[in-house]
Amino acid sequence: MSNTVQQIPELLYLLHKDPSELAAALSGMRAADVADALRQLPPDASGKLMAVLPFDLAVEVFDEPELAEYRCDIIAHMPDGTISALIDAMSSDRQADLFRELSHEARPRLLKQLDPVTQESLALLLKFPADTAAGIMTTEFVSMPATWTVAQALQNIRDVGRAKETVYAIYVLDPASQKLVHVVSLRQLMFAEQTTQLGDVGERRVPLSVAPRTDREDVARVISKYNLLAVPVVDDGGHVIGIVTVDDVIDALVREQTEDAQKFGGMEALDIPYTQIGFWGMIGKRAGWLTALFLGEMLTATAMGKFEGEIEKAVVLALFVPLIISSGGNSGSQATSLIIRALALRELTLKDWWRVALRELPTGLTLGVVLGSVGVIRILIWQSFGWYDYGVNFRLVALTVGCALVGVVTFGSMAGSMLPFLLKRLGFDPASASAPFVATLVDVTGLIIYFEVATAILRGSLL
Amino acid sequence: MSNTVQQIPELLYLLHKDPSELAAALSGMRAADVADALRQLPPDASGKLMAVLPFDLAVEVFDEPELAEYRCDIIAHMPDGTISALIDAMSSDRQADLFRELSHEARPRLLKQLDPVTQESLALLLKFPADTAAGIMTTEFVSMPATWTVAQALQNIRDVGRAKETVYAIYVLDPASQKLVHVVSLRQLMFAEQTTQLGDVGERRVPLSVAPRTDREDVARVISKYNLLAVPVVDDGGHVIGIVTVDDVIDALVREQTEDAQKFGGMEALDIPYTQIGFWGMIGKRAGWLTALFLGEMLTATAMGKFEGEIEKAVVLALFVPLIISSGGNSGSQATSLIIRALALRELTLKDWWRVALRELPTGLTLGVVLGSVGVIRILIWQSFGWYDYGVNFRLVALTVGCALVGVVTFGSMAGSMLPFLLKRLGFDPASASAPFVATLVDVTGLIIYFEVATAILRGSLL
Repeated sequence: MSNTVQQIPELLYLLHKDPSELAAALSGMRAADVADALRQLPPDASGKLMAVLPFDLAVEVFDEPELAEYRCDIIAHMPDGTISALIDAMSSDRQADLFRELSHEARPRLLKQLDPVTQESLALLLKFPADTAAGIMTTEFVSMPATWTVAQALQNIRDVGRAKETVYAIYVLDPASQKLVHVVSLRQLMFAEQTTQLGDVGERRVPLSVAPRTDREDVARVISKYNLLAVPVVDDGGHVIGIVTVDDVIDALVREQTEDAQKFGGMEALDIPYTQIGFWGMIGKRAGWLTALFLGEMLTATAMGKFEGEIEKAVVLALFVPLIISSGGNSGSQATSLIIRALALRELTLKDWWRVALRELPTGLTLGVVLGSVGVIRILIWQSFGWYDYGVNFRLVALTVGCALVGVVTFGSMAGSMLPFLLKRLGFDPASASAPFVATLVDVTGLIIYFEVATAILRGSLL
Repeated sequence: MSNTVQQIPELLYLLHKDPSELAAALSGMRAADVADALRQLPPDASGKLMAVLPFDLAVEVFDEPELAEYRCDIIAHMPDGTISALIDAMSSDRQADLFRELSHEARPRLLKQLDPVTQESLALLLKFPADTAAGIMTTEFVSMPATWTVAQALQNIRDVGRAKETVYAIYVLDPASQKLVHVVSLRQLMFAEQTTQLGDVGERRVPLSVAPRTDREDVARVISKYNLLAVPVVDDGGHVIGIVTVDDVIDALVREQTEDAQKFGGMEALDIPYTQIGFWGMIGKRAGWLTALFLGEMLTATAMGKFEGEIEKAVVLALFVPLIISSGGNSGSQATSLIIRALALRELTLKDWWRVALRELPTGLTLGVVLGSVGVIRILIWQSFGWYDYGVNFRLVALTVGCALVGVVTFGSMAGSMLPFLLKRLGFDPASASAPFVATLVDVTGLIIYFEVATAILRGSLL
């Protein structure tokens, strides 16, 4: 949407020549665009640039989630006094993100320089992992006792709202116990009578909330299902300890999506952008799974070894090995991607496995018959036109390939659809059932099916 | 989060016995939960239930995006008068969703019964495909002339805001041309002086907007990047024709995510949930790609045929065919999933292809050396312990397998990373570069690499 990248040489030139002129040029930009520019600059230049930005804009820029992996490098090039003021002014969820990434030496040093309120909020947030509700929540929310009137509430928002992440949801507390009893939207306040008490605005229902350790994907699901702008994080005692806003959820959704896509490709999730990860970091994320799959795939050599006699007698059988096992892998990959996604969307749960099995069996059979027919026709055509000679028993060879395809594709669909359930049942992430994982699983079995079918059909002729 | 599914028998019983009692029981529920229940009921029961729900709740329920695929079936079981009132009250983006799914006979019949304003808004929305900004926008937004004061604006929101999808963003228009000149948030209005003119509230910048035909994924990117609650859709003349809100964007993100996951699994995107699609619909989505991949994979039989002589002389070579080609496919699948995702997140653009190539070449080589070493060690161990006899030339066989793995894995990484760029360059969706697609591509080349390496190393000994 913006062409900040093209402005980089210009930025660097201005930064060198006249930092204050640069700051003036940038002050008209949106925070997200300045953040884009910072990601393109070397860290020392970014640090200098942050130091000359108008303070409010600098805070907004540092609040951008897109800057997550860069903040530590940037503050390493900023003067200490500027840093602590900046951090104090950031939203609490981003403060926690930053401290999670700081080195163990930098953390206590920087923490000491912060405002006591910030220190306390950080101590709370850092207790929770980054993929939980409390790990992505902010502690800056608006809460009021149920006995306040709408007029009092609106006045209070005008007084303290500037420092809050959102003023569009007001968390209404029991005046005595301070427990969450109701949630009122600013929209409802706008339409309510000035003298109504908050507890009586809108429909009174048990408020939607999440627990501190709720997985961020489930938080996203609640916000998306009920079309919320924010959801409160409530502890065991019924007290609101923070809120997760819809923009944090979008970031979480995009991150999860990236992780799942990479896992399905057969590797560990990268955690940082492809363009940013170092060479050995990349090798580390890929070599592990690749080697594990390779070790599994070695069983194909063992399986093939068992049928070495058959291959020697009928080399023609070997020709179709890649075709047959890959068809099993492909049908398995389809089934796996379908089931992983349906599980992630909660369209399916663990107990639906047998319904899926009953569905994939006829589906696999049908797909197998389609491919098997194509395979048989292929062999017959090649033989008739003299493009290849499969020997005098070419009809039996074609039959073998056709029947093996039906068996292998059916097995592929079944194995591919059951693997995510199995992984989930064993407590693993179903998304680990990658396309290569399924292919490996199906390859070994596919070989056995193929050679068993061949033995049955070709015994007495070729074998 | 809720256990509506368990309540279904109870719901059906109440619906049969006393519909009004049922309506009372449901009126305390949230719309999203009632929608969940409707999805589990047979369409005729859902239709009856909708008819007895309090009208406001019925509208909210029908506005739930989760009900998208069910609306047509449900209204087929509702009285015509109730339907038109319900549709008139729905938000305009959902009205358009519904009409897109209606049959060609039902569409004009229902359209005639609607309010003229609704008819006009539908005529506009239905001009655009469902995956564009205008296809997912709503026409119910708040706009005001720049000359109004904050006090006038707040009063206007109280007067007309109830009918609008969101009142948190106010679109400020030039009083003469009616063009969009500014966007003010309700939050800014809360903190502004009552007498300030809207044009002077907040910072004056060119407002962020999208064009009617902007892809919904790009709309999601703008909303997520700038942390917006809504983005205006502006036509060529500079007029706001609708807005896309953040909750629509979340739904769009989840849909795109599902489509991409299914495509990467090697099939067409399903469009409807796995649990809802019919048997032949499912076959249709899967058989096409599976057959296309099968036809491509047939080239492996041709390639193997070219080396039939080599296999006859050294059957031991056939044993490692699945191991070697699958390793290429796996490394290719990793690279493809990385690049598809980086392209989707705009971390990479088309012109970065050579940077990726320069990166994947050493990565592929390193991964190839890792797998090659494991492969060589595997053969030497099996031979030394007498678990398998690879013949007197087992050292040369091991060397062949090792070198072939380096070549095949390097080729796999390169092909896997370049394919998404190539597809994008040719105008296809890079997400079509599925794991099975890459595997097929790499299998044929992998075989040729393997047998060429074997010919070079084993000539004079085995071959």
